[in-house]
Amino acid sequence: MKLGTIGANLGWLLIFLSLTLLFPLGVSLYYGDGNWYCFVEAAFVGLITGGLLAFACVPEEDIGHKEGFAIVGFGWIMSAFLGALPYYFSSAIPSFLDAYFESMSGFTTTGSTILNEVEPLGHGLLFWRALTHWLGGMGIIVLSLAILPILGIGGMQLFQAEMPGPTKDRLAPRIQDTARILWGVYLLFTVLEVALLMLAGMDLFNAVCHAFATLATGGFSTITASVGGFNSPWVDYIVVFFMILAGMNFALHYRLLTGRGRELLKSSELKFYLTVGFGGAFLLTAVNLYHHTYESIVDSFRYSLFQAWSILTTTGFGTADFDKWAPACQFVLVAFMFLGGMAGSTGGGIKNVRILLFLKFTRVHIKKLIHPRAVETLKMDGKKVPADVMQSILAYLSLYLTFLVAAILVVTSQGLDIVTGSTAVIATLNNIGPGLAGVGPVKNFAHVPAVSKMVLILCMVAGRLELYTIAVLLVPEYWKGARLPIWRWKRETH
Amino acid sequence: MKLGTIGANLGWLLIFLSLTLLFPLGVSLYYGDGNWYCFVEAAFVGLITGGLLAFACVPEEDIGHKEGFAIVGFGWIMSAFLGALPYYFSSAIPSFLDAYFESMSGFTTTGSTILNEVEPLGHGLLFWRALTHWLGGMGIIVLSLAILPILGIGGMQLFQAEMPGPTKDRLAPRIQDTARILWGVYLLFTVLEVALLMLAGMDLFNAVCHAFATLATGGFSTITASVGGFNSPWVDYIVVFFMILAGMNFALHYRLLTGRGRELLKSSELKFYLTVGFGGAFLLTAVNLYHHTYESIVDSFRYSLFQAWSILTTTGFGTADFDKWAPACQFVLVAFMFLGGMAGSTGGGIKNVRILLFLKFTRVHIKKLIHPRAVETLKMDGKKVPADVMQSILAYLSLYLTFLVAAILVVTSQGLDIVTGSTAVIATLNNIGPGLAGVGPVKNFAHVPAVSKMVLILCMVAGRLELYTIAVLLVPEYWKGARLPIWRWKRETH
Repeated sequence: MKLGTIGANLGWLLIFLSLTLLFPLGVSLYYGDGNWYCFVEAAFVGLITGGLLAFACVPEEDIGHKEGFAIVGFGWIMSAFLGALPYYFSSAIPSFLDAYFESMSGFTTTGSTILNEVEPLGHGLLFWRALTHWLGGMGIIVLSLAILPILGIGGMQLFQAEMPGPTKDRLAPRIQDTARILWGVYLLFTVLEVALLMLAGMDLFNAVCHAFATLATGGFSTITASVGGFNSPWVDYIVVFFMILAGMNFALHYRLLTGRGRELLKSSELKFYLTVGFGGAFLLTAVNLYHHTYESIVDSFRYSLFQAWSILTTTGFGTADFDKWAPACQFVLVAFMFLGGMAGSTGGGIKNVRILLFLKFTRVHIKKLIHPRAVETLKMDGKKVPADVMQSILAYLSLYLTFLVAAILVVTSQGLDIVTGSTAVIATLNNIGPGLAGVGPVKNFAHVPAVSKMVLILCMVAGRLELYTIAVLLVPEYWKGARLPIWRWKRETH
Repeated sequence: MKLGTIGANLGWLLIFLSLTLLFPLGVSLYYGDGNWYCFVEAAFVGLITGGLLAFACVPEEDIGHKEGFAIVGFGWIMSAFLGALPYYFSSAIPSFLDAYFESMSGFTTTGSTILNEVEPLGHGLLFWRALTHWLGGMGIIVLSLAILPILGIGGMQLFQAEMPGPTKDRLAPRIQDTARILWGVYLLFTVLEVALLMLAGMDLFNAVCHAFATLATGGFSTITASVGGFNSPWVDYIVVFFMILAGMNFALHYRLLTGRGRELLKSSELKFYLTVGFGGAFLLTAVNLYHHTYESIVDSFRYSLFQAWSILTTTGFGTADFDKWAPACQFVLVAFMFLGGMAGSTGGGIKNVRILLFLKFTRVHIKKLIHPRAVETLKMDGKKVPADVMQSILAYLSLYLTFLVAAILVVTSQGLDIVTGSTAVIATLNNIGPGLAGVGPVKNFAHVPAVSKMVLILCMVAGRLELYTIAVLLVPEYWKGARLPIWRWKRETH
C-alpha cells in the first residue's frame, strides 16, 4: 500500500476542486447574493489541505491496484467534504451533516436534497450545487470507462468488444487522453443543451444549471418545483432528449460523433435501454390515461415520458408528483430505479447490461432444462459471454442486495415507514434522487434521522462507485501493511 | 413427449387424492356439520376423472425428463382443482376462483386465505383445509429431495455431499423407497406434535389440524385468530419447535433419527438457518421492547420468537398483528420472507443454502479484487463449490426476480397499493401466507381483484415448485412434438 501515492493524488484533486470554486464565486459576485465569502473560505481550506497533502506525500510513478481503490473511494468522500463547506460557511445549510448530504448527493449525481426550498440558496450556491453534479459526472465517465475496468470491476465492459471503453481497443491508451476525449463529448452535449434550453425560453443561468444536472443524470434544479416549474413542454422534451443521451455509453457517443461505429447502434444493450425506457413511458401513459390522472392524452404522454426517462436514467428531475400516481405507475418507477442507465454513462442503478445478461442467462438455463443434452451458450451481440463475466454480475447483485437490505434495516429501525425507508435507500443507492411517500418528489430528506442520513450518504457513494470500491475499503485485509506516519511514507517510497 | 405417461400418472394422483377425501368425510359425519355430501361429490368427480385418465392413457415403463416437469406442474394444478371442489360444492366459498385460491394455498403450503372468518367452514372443511397442507408437504419433501434433482433443478442438493438427499448416496435408490422413509419421519413428527399440543390443552381435532399445518409449514389454522387465539405460551413454544424442525432438511432428520450423521449438525446451512432465525427473533424482541409493543420482556420474546420463525420457515401462523409493529420489525419479517427454510424442508422461499452461497460468493469476489493474483475458491463445509452450482443459483434468482417484478406489476396495476401488492406477491411466491397492510396477518385476500388472485395463485404454485417447473411449461418449445388425441397416444406408446 503506497500511502504516498494516495495522499498526493487526493491532494491534487483537492487543489483542482478548490479552483472550480472560482466559478460559483464569480456567479455569486455577478448576482450579488452576498455569499461570495463562503466560496473564498472553502477554496482557502481546500487549497491549504490539498497543498499540504500534495507537498507531504511523495507519489510513485505508477498507481497500483490497491491505491486505485483508495484514490477513487476517498476521492469522492473528500470531494463531498469540500463541497459541503460553502453550504455550511454561508449558513444556508446550518447542519454540517445536512450540508455533507447535499454535497454528496451532488458529487454522486444523485439529486436527493435536504432542502425544503432551494430558491433561498441564492445564485452562487445554486450554481455550485449544479456544478457538483457536473464534476461528479465527469468523474464517473472516466471512472467507469477507464479506471474501474483496470481495477477489475465492471467486467462486462471488457467483454463488450462491440461497445468498448477506449481502454480496451487502445483508442487512447492513457487515462488522461481517454478523459480528454470523453469530456469533449460531455462538454459538447452540455453546450448544446444550454443553447436549446435558452431557445425554449430559459435564461442562461437556469439553462446552464439544468444542463449540468441533466448530463450528469443528477437532478438538482434551481427551483423547488424542479423542471415542472418552468411549465414548458419544450423544456420538458429537450431535457428528456438529453437525459436519454446522458444515460447512454459516452464511448458510443464519441464513436458516433467521429463517424465510426454506426453498427454499434444495433447493440443489444442500446436496444434494451431504448425499448425499456419508451416501453415504460407508454405503459405509464396508458395507466395515467386509464386513471384520468391528466385531462388530455398529450399531457398524459408528456408527464409519463418525462418521469419514465428521468427515473430510468437516474436523473430524478420532476415534472409531476408521481407519489400521487396509481400504484402500478409507482411500481414501474420503482422497478426502473434498479435498472439505471447503460454502462459507461453518467447514470446510476444496476445498469442495463447487467439486467440484460441476467435475463438472457435465465432463458439459456430454461432451455437447458428442456434439452439437457443440448449445448446452449449465452451470447450477446453474436459473441459468447464468458462464464467469469456472469459470475462477476452475480457477485455484484449479491453485494448490491446485501447493501440494500442492511441499509433499509437501519433506516426503518430509525422509524421511517417501510415505503419511505425502502425507497429512500433505493433512490440513494441507485443515485436517483426522490423516492416515494415521505421522500417523494415533492418532499425531501430533511426529516430523516441523523444516523439514517449517514447510511443514505454511504448508499450514495457506494452505489455511485459500483459498490466494490467502497466494499473493498471496508475490508480489514485491504489495510494490511498500510502505515500512517507521513515521514515513513517518504522513506518507504524513496 | 409421452402424453400417455403424463396422463396415467395424473390419473392415479387424482384417484389417490379422491380417497383422501374420505378423512374429512369421516370428520364431517362425526361432528355432524352437514357438509358430508360435498366430500362425496368431490370424490366422485375425482374418481371418475382420474379413472378415465388412468384408463385412457397407457404409460411407459420409465418417466422421462420432459414428462417429469408436466407431471409435477400439472399434478399441483390439478390437485388444487380437486381440492377446491368441497369448498365450492358446500357453498362455504361461493366463488370457484376463491375456492381454487384457498385450495392452491393449501396444497402449496402457503396459508394465504380469502376467508374473513374460518370457523363457519365447520369441522369437515377445516380438516380438509389442514389436510391439503399436509398432503402438499408430503409432495414437497419427495419433490425436493428425490424428483427435482433428477430434473436438473436444485443443483446444490447434488453438491451437498455433507447433507445429501437420499437419491445421491443411494440411501434408497428408488423414488418410492425414498418417499416411504421421509414420510415416516414426517408422520412421526406429526404424531409427536399432536401429542404435545394435546398435553398443552388442545383437543384432538385442533391438535391434528395445527400439526398438519406446522409440519407442512402451511399456516392454515382452525380459528380466525390463528395460533394466537389459543392464548397459551405452551402452544406457542411447541409450534415454534416443530416449525423449526419443519424448516430443516428431512433427509437430515432421517439420518439423525437413525443415529448416523451426527457430524451433519455442523453443516453451514444448518448453522446459518438457526443463527438467522434466532438472531432475527432477538432483534425483533429488542425492537419491540424499545417501542414498548408489549408490556413485559417475556411477552416481547414470546411473540417475536414465534413471528420470526413463523415467517422464516414460511409457515405464516400468527400470534401477533405484526402489521402494527415498528417499521424495522416489518422489514426484518419481509426480508425473512425471501430467505425461507433449508433445502429439502417443507419450507418455501429462496432457501437458506442459496442465500448462504450467494453471500460466500460475494466475499470471495471482494477478496479477489484485493488480491487479483491470489486463487480464492468458494468453499462450503470444506468442499469446493462447482461453478455450475453458482450459475444455477444465479439463474434461479434471475427467474425469481422476473416472476416477482411481473407479478407485482399486475397486482398493483389492478389497484392494490404498493405495500399490499408487493407483500401479497412476496407472501405467495415464497409460500408464507400473510403479507403487510391490506393482506396483513389480521386481514385476508378476499378483497383482491380476480386477475390479481389468478396471478397470486400462479405465484403460489410457481414458488412452490422452484419456479423452473412452471417456467418450463410456459415455454412453447417444451410442447414441440406433443400431440393431443388420446387414441394417438396409445398408438405412439405401444
